[in-house]
Amino acid sequence: MAERRRIPVAVVNGAGYGGVELLRLLRAHPAFELVEVTARSDAGKPVRSVFPPLADLDLAFGDRVERAELVFLALPDHASVELAPTLLAEGRRVVDLSAGFRLRDEKLYPTWYGYEHSASALLETAVYGLTEWTREQLPEARLVACPGCYPTAALLALGPALKEGLIAPDVIVDAISGVSGAGRTLRLTSHFSEVNEDVTAYSVGGHRHWPEILQGMREISGEVSSKEARLTFTPHLAPITRGILATCYANLREGVTLADVRAVYEHAYAQEPFVEFVAETPHTKWTLGSNRCFIAATLDKHSQRLILISALDNLVKGAAGQAIQCANVMYSLLETLGLPLEGVYP
Amino acid sequence: MAERRRIPVAVVNGAGYGGVELLRLLRAHPAFELVEVTARSDAGKPVRSVFPPLADLDLAFGDRVERAELVFLALPDHASVELAPTLLAEGRRVVDLSAGFRLRDEKLYPTWYGYEHSASALLETAVYGLTEWTREQLPEARLVACPGCYPTAALLALGPALKEGLIAPDVIVDAISGVSGAGRTLRLTSHFSEVNEDVTAYSVGGHRHWPEILQGMREISGEVSSKEARLTFTPHLAPITRGILATCYANLREGVTLADVRAVYEHAYAQEPFVEFVAETPHTKWTLGSNRCFIAATLDKHSQRLILISALDNLVKGAAGQAIQCANVMYSLLETLGLPLEGVYP
Amino acid sequence: MAERRRIPVAVVNGAGYGGVELLRLLRAHPAFELVEVTARSDAGKPVRSVFPPLADLDLAFGDRVERAELVFLALPDHASVELAPTLLAEGRRVVDLSAGFRLRDEKLYPTWYGYEHSASALLETAVYGLTEWTREQLPEARLVACPGCYPTAALLALGPALKEGLIAPDVIVDAISGVSGAGRTLRLTSHFSEVNEDVTAYSVGGHRHWPEILQGMREISGEVSSKEARLTFTPHLAPITRGILATCYANLREGVTLADVRAVYEHAYAQEPFVEFVAETPHTKWTLGSNRCFIAATLDKHSQRLILISALDNLVKGAAGQAIQCANVMYSLLETLGLPLEGVYP
Amino acid sequence: MAERRRIPVAVVNGAGYGGVELLRLLRAHPAFELVEVTARSDAGKPVRSVFPPLADLDLAFGDRVERAELVFLALPDHASVELAPTLLAEGRRVVDLSAGFRLRDEKLYPTWYGYEHSASALLETAVYGLTEWTREQLPEARLVACPGCYPTAALLALGPALKEGLIAPDVIVDAISGVSGAGRTLRLTSHFSEVNEDVTAYSVGGHRHWPEILQGMREISGEVSSKEARLTFTPHLAPITRGILATCYANLREGVTLADVRAVYEHAYAQEPFVEFVAETPHTKWTLGSNRCFIAATLDKHSQRLILISALDNLVKGAAGQAIQCANVMYSLLETLGLPLEGVYP
Repeated sequence: MAERRRIPVAVVNGAGYGGVELLRLLRAHPAFELVEVTARSDAGKPVRSVFPPLADLDLAFGDRVERAELVFLALPDHASVELAPTLLAEGRRVVDLSAGFRLRDEKLYPTWYGYEHSASALLETAVYGLTEWTREQLPEARLVACPGCYPTAALLALGPALKEGLIAPDVIVDAISGVSGAGRTLRLTSHFSEVNEDVTAYSVGGHRHWPEILQGMREISGEVSSKEARLTFTPHLAPITRGILATCYANLREGVTLADVRAVYEHAYAQEPFVEFVAETPHTKWTLGSNRCFIAATLDKHSQRLILISALDNLVKGAAGQAIQCANVMYSLLETLGLPLEGVYP
Repeated sequence: MAERRRIPVAVVNGAGYGGVELLRLLRAHPAFELVEVTARSDAGKPVRSVFPPLADLDLAFGDRVERAELVFLALPDHASVELAPTLLAEGRRVVDLSAGFRLRDEKLYPTWYGYEHSASALLETAVYGLTEWTREQLPEARLVACPGCYPTAALLALGPALKEGLIAPDVIVDAISGVSGAGRTLRLTSHFSEVNEDVTAYSVGGHRHWPEILQGMREISGEVSSKEARLTFTPHLAPITRGILATCYANLREGVTLADVRAVYEHAYAQEPFVEFVAETPHTKWTLGSNRCFIAATLDKHSQRLILISALDNLVKGAAGQAIQCANVMYSLLETLGLPLEGVYP
Repeated sequence: MAERRRIPVAVVNGAGYGGVELLRLLRAHPAFELVEVTARSDAGKPVRSVFPPLADLDLAFGDRVERAELVFLALPDHASVELAPTLLAEGRRVVDLSAGFRLRDEKLYPTWYGYEHSASALLETAVYGLTEWTREQLPEARLVACPGCYPTAALLALGPALKEGLIAPDVIVDAISGVSGAGRTLRLTSHFSEVNEDVTAYSVGGHRHWPEILQGMREISGEVSSKEARLTFTPHLAPITRGILATCYANLREGVTLADVRAVYEHAYAQEPFVEFVAETPHTKWTLGSNRCFIAATLDKHSQRLILISALDNLVKGAAGQAIQCANVMYSLLETLGLPLEGVYP
Repeated sequence: MAERRRIPVAVVNGAGYGGVELLRLLRAHPAFELVEVTARSDAGKPVRSVFPPLADLDLAFGDRVERAELVFLALPDHASVELAPTLLAEGRRVVDLSAGFRLRDEKLYPTWYGYEHSASALLETAVYGLTEWTREQLPEARLVACPGCYPTAALLALGPALKEGLIAPDVIVDAISGVSGAGRTLRLTSHFSEVNEDVTAYSVGGHRHWPEILQGMREISGEVSSKEARLTFTPHLAPITRGILATCYANLREGVTLADVRAVYEHAYAQEPFVEFVAETPHTKWTLGSNRCFIAATLDKHSQRLILISALDNLVKGAAGQAIQCANVMYSLLETLGLPLEGVYP
């Protein structure tokens, strides 16, 4: 095989969990060449001295991007908003893992994120990187806003039902996440002795992923009026490192049966390499280290409610893996290139 | 203090997790004297040889009840149904931890438990042992049916709102349980390597606690017609040993505010020794080894749904502790006697 | 029973894991009355607002000790060294959970703890609170230095063999601890996603408990020359919240058999309320929330090495429980008063 | 690239944890084609119905090997001993993951494994598949006996020191393993509620890996007399799914320094793709899902004992990954082909 030129890529902030997962996956990617990785506090240190599992990675943390054509941003959202315009102006393409460019309506940023958006012109052109629903927009994208981990799980679970109008857009998303979703920053709520042997809910009635899920529900269902979509979203924390399980409740529209739902989901996801519509209730363990999302649909016949359950690895399909999936499509590569399908089990 | 006669009690099947928790708690109970404990497969063995943490318990597993006035049954429900009539006929009082006498409608047993109830006459006189809601019936009770762990969590969370008509009896109970709820019997779904670092839902749309929760909802709300109550119940499994967190969703009735809800709950539980209505979202870790249940109420203002969350230790307030709480009331003892209030934290 | 005056006690720094465990245990102690609890950063807050499991504790964190006769110090060791002289001068008795007064040789402090000891005169009179080995010194003690968690596990395991000269004082202590031993202070090494599904060793060849274990070995064996005792101590971290398992290796002296060892241990610990010498290998789970220590002895016949294994809860027998055990003896109370014997299992 | 013929391989007993890990790794192997997989109890079922994470594997469990040139046996050792001679007689090559052919001395089988070896002639020709120490024997091997998980960890840690005579062959191996090492068979000792939040030792003074480690120590050190090697081996269980940490204690020979040890290890493992000799104490988490082993050396200067610590994933480098590493060498393929280097972190 003639050696194809590999595309030089960079990871900005490779020292958080999203960033280091990008490093792990890009390290083995056949078409992307990881040429730069930054991390403010670790600048100058070899990556392997901070992350020994990456023993073969011959790079040191730097403090800027110079050579990369494609840049993955694993920054806090505010920092992404500040950096992305510069990178784009330099002619680079950007895949942003933060929430900085996910919401189309700039007015949501002060409310939900606490700041005025300083690059709101980009909100319109940024492509929301839920590949399964926005695949055709990615090859032309300069800036991709990767979905949050919960929105990925919720929208993959709800998408076909919303799109085909099988359910009213009035849903409850009750989700359970592993602790890595809270990042590598030290907090009492991520302290081992507090989290181990504990389960709790958090941000009840007001998590930042609420407007993002709602926006996705509206776009997929084609219903744009805010009056028509109703969403309750409750995240929970369980003592696992990785994984999200989203249990979604909705009412079937008049005349729709569970068989209809299953037929729609089988068709919608038949060709998707990373989504498996299954008969059994999925387990987060099926997805550890993998870019797959498993989805099941059940009708609670006692209450006639539809229950859609999805499972994924929040750091792969919910973050770094999904970002690389977007990048593969941006460069018209095989969508699965360099992405693990089989999870580490048990 | 003059030595009061202690009431001789027995535990039938002390070799499961519910049973051994009864042993731990009764061991230190000042008014009950544990005189007999049975376990079919371990009959003849000293309890401490099977459960070394009970090093001071000078009893061997036996195979029948002879001296006890009060008998705690920690059997599978079918075995409880067979044994209880005999014990009652012998003049003993019975506190049953199984589902054998929880459902008033005998027709539910074939559907949900797979057998015809052989002692259905007792279903009417058995007192449902959710002390907070049935306290006044306990002193006269000969047979107490202790609630299941999920129904305890759900009904303590929903009770005051149903009772006062703050919500319509149309709710979703989304609950997460520790693995000890599945007992000491070996199953792949309780195998460490399968459960660790995993979260899943199970019995989706058809868990046995569904009719029990529904029955409780109806009795508390005073609505008896089956048409009027609607319940979806989804249990999940998380890698913790003990604990249940129940997140309950309901719609407030017209004109009811969150302040109304909080006032009702504060009043309802103000005098309850084992229920704490709190402002913060509760953690199962707060309850480890304790007979307490913590409850919080939030209104998701974006969707106008009421969210009630309860946390308890499934083996204490959800099983053995609650059974002893019932027994304390049956004998007009101090309700908290011998029951731990403070959980083991962290 | 005539109401006996309860002894007023205080906990200094009740906001760490050792401190809050003291609160849990003292809350239910029949002879000690918890009248004051301090915590610098939480001063002014009700204890229950910081630690909801202590819902019934009607105390707020303060910043000084005024009424208590007996003071438990759960401070960092340097702070204990500074505060204890004042409390003693005020006529109070002090039980210190830190390392501040454990080492008799003041020269060890600069080497192992990084500071000159400012109250070295107290090192001679402080009683080392390993009750099983220093019981008779406690009733007169004004200042008790409670052993570290690892030294407790190691010295209870090795004590009888050293005392009776069954082994040479040349041992390896290989221990595994839960994460709560590292406290409530945020550190990457206590961050859930780093610790979960991980096992490692730490402080290899130089943990601060090394000189304390060695000192105890010498005092128990009666061998004072430093040349004669040799100790290797390697602590490990496992993803559990509570528990220490110490596996100790030694060579039997000529002519000594395993039967001799077992006879000595059975005799040594026959009357001890908190030490169980058992035939089976102990589990840390047997001790969760309990003040018990389980010990077993095995001879590896292939290598003729004696293996002594002990298990305890690092926050109870390894810290707060042991401190209360000392206090019970200081006041000539029943040694087991207010201390849990049965662990929470499973 | 011209399509090279892939070598047809089979996995016998793909339904245990070792077997399913072989499936995961072989699925993605570029030179081996997985053509058959057997599992007695699941024969006839599609692999993906038993193991949903292997969603893309288009194979059903069968009951015999027909097409494969190379067969991986993931059977209990007794079953391997029975099957291997037939497979070899049919002209296939065999990589056995069990203990069936690891011990050269057939007399050890009745003592340690409880049966007379029925194919003892093969014990002499079987190659012990610790590639780092037996690489040159593998290309000609017809039957490879893959090392046990503990022996792999112990011998990689001790090997260079024994080979170069830096230590006397008198060592203690104190190891901690994850629960998957005990397999998928249901046992109370693998039951979640028993293992979670617990640490214990097991098989103290008599684990089956003892003779295997001792044999390896002798072969590497070149000391054949049984009198000269002394080994104590104590395995522990921690609540993790995967991972082994082996902490090995030895005395340096006269005149040998830690610098000597480090120089020897750096040289010994400099070219090894799967062994990293590191300065920091290794973590099992560094190895999750990877075929790497990390090793560190420390001298406890207080006791002058050498401490060698190794970490690996028991199902990869300790089982399935190592087996594929052997197979790569057997077929003169790149040794790292199809084997993951980077672990899943965190």
